[in-house]
Amino acid sequence: MNVEIIVIGDELLIGQVTDTNSAWIARELNKIGWEITEITTVRDRREEMLSAFNQSFARVNVVLVTGGLGPTKDDMTKQTLCDFFGGKMIFDDSVLQNIERWLSKRKIKLNDSTRSQAMVPDVCSVIQNPVGTAPVMWFEREGKVLVSMPGVPFEMKNAMENEVIPRLRHRFPDHTSIRHFTCLVMNFTESALSEYLTDFEAEMPSAVKLAYLPNPGVIRLRLTARGEDDLETCRMLEKQAEKLCGLLGKNIFSYRDTTMAGALGAILEKEGYTVATAESCTGGNIAHEITLIPGSSAYYKGSIVSYANEIKETVLGVSTEDLEKYGAVSRQVVEQMVKGVQKLMHTDCAVATSGVAGPNGGTSEKPVGTVWIAVALGDKIVSEKFLFGENRKYNIERATHMAFLSMIKLLSGS
Amino acid sequence: MNVEIIVIGDELLIGQVTDTNSAWIARELNKIGWEITEITTVRDRREEMLSAFNQSFARVNVVLVTGGLGPTKDDMTKQTLCDFFGGKMIFDDSVLQNIERWLSKRKIKLNDSTRSQAMVPDVCSVIQNPVGTAPVMWFEREGKVLVSMPGVPFEMKNAMENEVIPRLRHRFPDHTSIRHFTCLVMNFTESALSEYLTDFEAEMPSAVKLAYLPNPGVIRLRLTARGEDDLETCRMLEKQAEKLCGLLGKNIFSYRDTTMAGALGAILEKEGYTVATAESCTGGNIAHEITLIPGSSAYYKGSIVSYANEIKETVLGVSTEDLEKYGAVSRQVVEQMVKGVQKLMHTDCAVATSGVAGPNGGTSEKPVGTVWIAVALGDKIVSEKFLFGENRKYNIERATHMAFLSMIKLLSGS
Repeated sequence: MNVEIIVIGDELLIGQVTDTNSAWIARELNKIGWEITEITTVRDRREEMLSAFNQSFARVNVVLVTGGLGPTKDDMTKQTLCDFFGGKMIFDDSVLQNIERWLSKRKIKLNDSTRSQAMVPDVCSVIQNPVGTAPVMWFEREGKVLVSMPGVPFEMKNAMENEVIPRLRHRFPDHTSIRHFTCLVMNFTESALSEYLTDFEAEMPSAVKLAYLPNPGVIRLRLTARGEDDLETCRMLEKQAEKLCGLLGKNIFSYRDTTMAGALGAILEKEGYTVATAESCTGGNIAHEITLIPGSSAYYKGSIVSYANEIKETVLGVSTEDLEKYGAVSRQVVEQMVKGVQKLMHTDCAVATSGVAGPNGGTSEKPVGTVWIAVALGDKIVSEKFLFGENRKYNIERATHMAFLSMIKLLSGS
Repeated sequence: MNVEIIVIGDELLIGQVTDTNSAWIARELNKIGWEITEITTVRDRREEMLSAFNQSFARVNVVLVTGGLGPTKDDMTKQTLCDFFGGKMIFDDSVLQNIERWLSKRKIKLNDSTRSQAMVPDVCSVIQNPVGTAPVMWFEREGKVLVSMPGVPFEMKNAMENEVIPRLRHRFPDHTSIRHFTCLVMNFTESALSEYLTDFEAEMPSAVKLAYLPNPGVIRLRLTARGEDDLETCRMLEKQAEKLCGLLGKNIFSYRDTTMAGALGAILEKEGYTVATAESCTGGNIAHEITLIPGSSAYYKGSIVSYANEIKETVLGVSTEDLEKYGAVSRQVVEQMVKGVQKLMHTDCAVATSGVAGPNGGTSEKPVGTVWIAVALGDKIVSEKFLFGENRKYNIERATHMAFLSMIKLLSGS
């Protein structure tokens, strides 16, 4: 089943908000074998919305619309949908009751603006939104379905999981099977990997597709198989996945689609190791990535974000003389940080970073983007200097990513 | 000047990657008064790309295309653009030289796959990409421009900043002025604020627009003015902004568009205060948000991410009895955490969190989503219990956001 998403909101087109809803919807629909074939993002303008509705409706049977449902004047999705489907706006008591329930839980008083959320087109089926005030609206025409949902990610996800996906599956029973296998590969550039896999790709059945998703130092490889019969599709995928894994061997460090932190966590959990982090330039981002993983408390003890040098000394025990002699961004300091946190938190493994994230603080000797990373496993310590770019956010992300990769390499012995 | 973005890549439509490029491009173009009017995301399929090129080219004068330029088989943007503009592929020595320069810096050997990056349509002007192997391509037809850039954010940003935006401004000199004023408002729901500002909105000149961007506990209000004359537009915006600020008074906690961490940082810097954080359920995310702000080292000393209870005891000095008696997610513990880190790091202010992020670890008394937040300024401590939802990532984000808001409220005395 092909689906299109229409994302509505000026805030997206001036870049004040990044659309994370579409990727989430795509992942969820992918699980049931449905495909997003196009995403269109338009402004809060009647003509532009109508044009998007018309075009998507002409191409696919299911259109999911997010955003533009707030109570304020700039939100006009509801009225435009009402016109598109040739209805008129009516007051819906059940929506008002839902809004009142929601407000009373939060001890908020109903006002005219929120009350207007209970006006809905008479040509839609209303799906109550238990976690917000904007109702979800289900429209049908000529056997096609359009569902309008709030743009607030939490509200949209709630509606999709509990109502929209189950209703769509019921409305369009579908039996095409799509199966993915994803693995994470290190030690290759994208083009070197592509060359290495030339024969493998040439011999792949046409119902299987291979995609490369490169990140610095890591490539996510995704095999996708499609077929009528789910069991057959699984078998076909499995056969290709096995062949691929055989070819790549220890260069694969995760056999599932996960973040670097997720891949590291799986290895730590398997080995029964604990880990701690000491972060300077990454400023807590390594800890954050690790703790995004459910169950990370099984192996993660904590982090010392030693942003100020005095914290490196007083909490991590870095030598004052070495800090003065070599500077905070040095092998000496990052190695003392990694040892310090490993000792303080009594862990098997530890990761430490110290660098110049930018935009200021760079010198000719240590320009912005210079980052020292140290990783420890028992008594063994490996440290390495990296030179990333000039962008602060990018340097923090790259350093975090490389810290995970360094720890994974030390653990896998490669 | 109206611009459309076309984003190409299967990985976006199966949700494996979130498109952050478009929001960045939108922000950059907004600064020069150009508007993104539509974003279309399509798969790596020839027909779908061609249809998107045709439609965007019919609507606007400038089309920016990102993605689909890798050396692997699934990337076919270059060939499709070549066909769209009626050209043929030729080998470009200058591109090869650029690739070789890039590879030799990284001590990577050239292979056939990378070499194929030097094949370009003969109907485009090539813009060398100094930070990657895929060239940027500039096409023109009937006075309209299409620029194709790599999807890797870093490469795209480099090309946009250094080459594409300057060239576009030169190619399309434009004098429409767009000016924004954004402020962050607390203590209102979206609809209460909308009601409060009804008269203000009614009296606004038609060339000024007001938009609401709600987040939990905070609303970002954006005034946008447009006009022929930049000075006149600024004056018109300033007048409305002054009026708005007068109406909202101390409910505005930031007069510029920034993150919660940015708003907090500005207050701390103005007051000359330092801050430290002690994080359990937020796992370093507060530290990460603070340290994303350039110059945060002026007021931020560091964080103790005390994920394991033993770290709360040994590093932060939380009482073992209280941990046992009240549990880690309690007023008693979070207040000891905030005091502990304030003392350890010798700061004026401190923030601490302890909660059940989920999906596991909840009890009937403390369900998943329960979070205690404590903030301190000198001897004054304020702590509060929140109940968020069931989603781990969302709970971490909400707790981080609310921790900033609590600290800002304590600092502003409201």
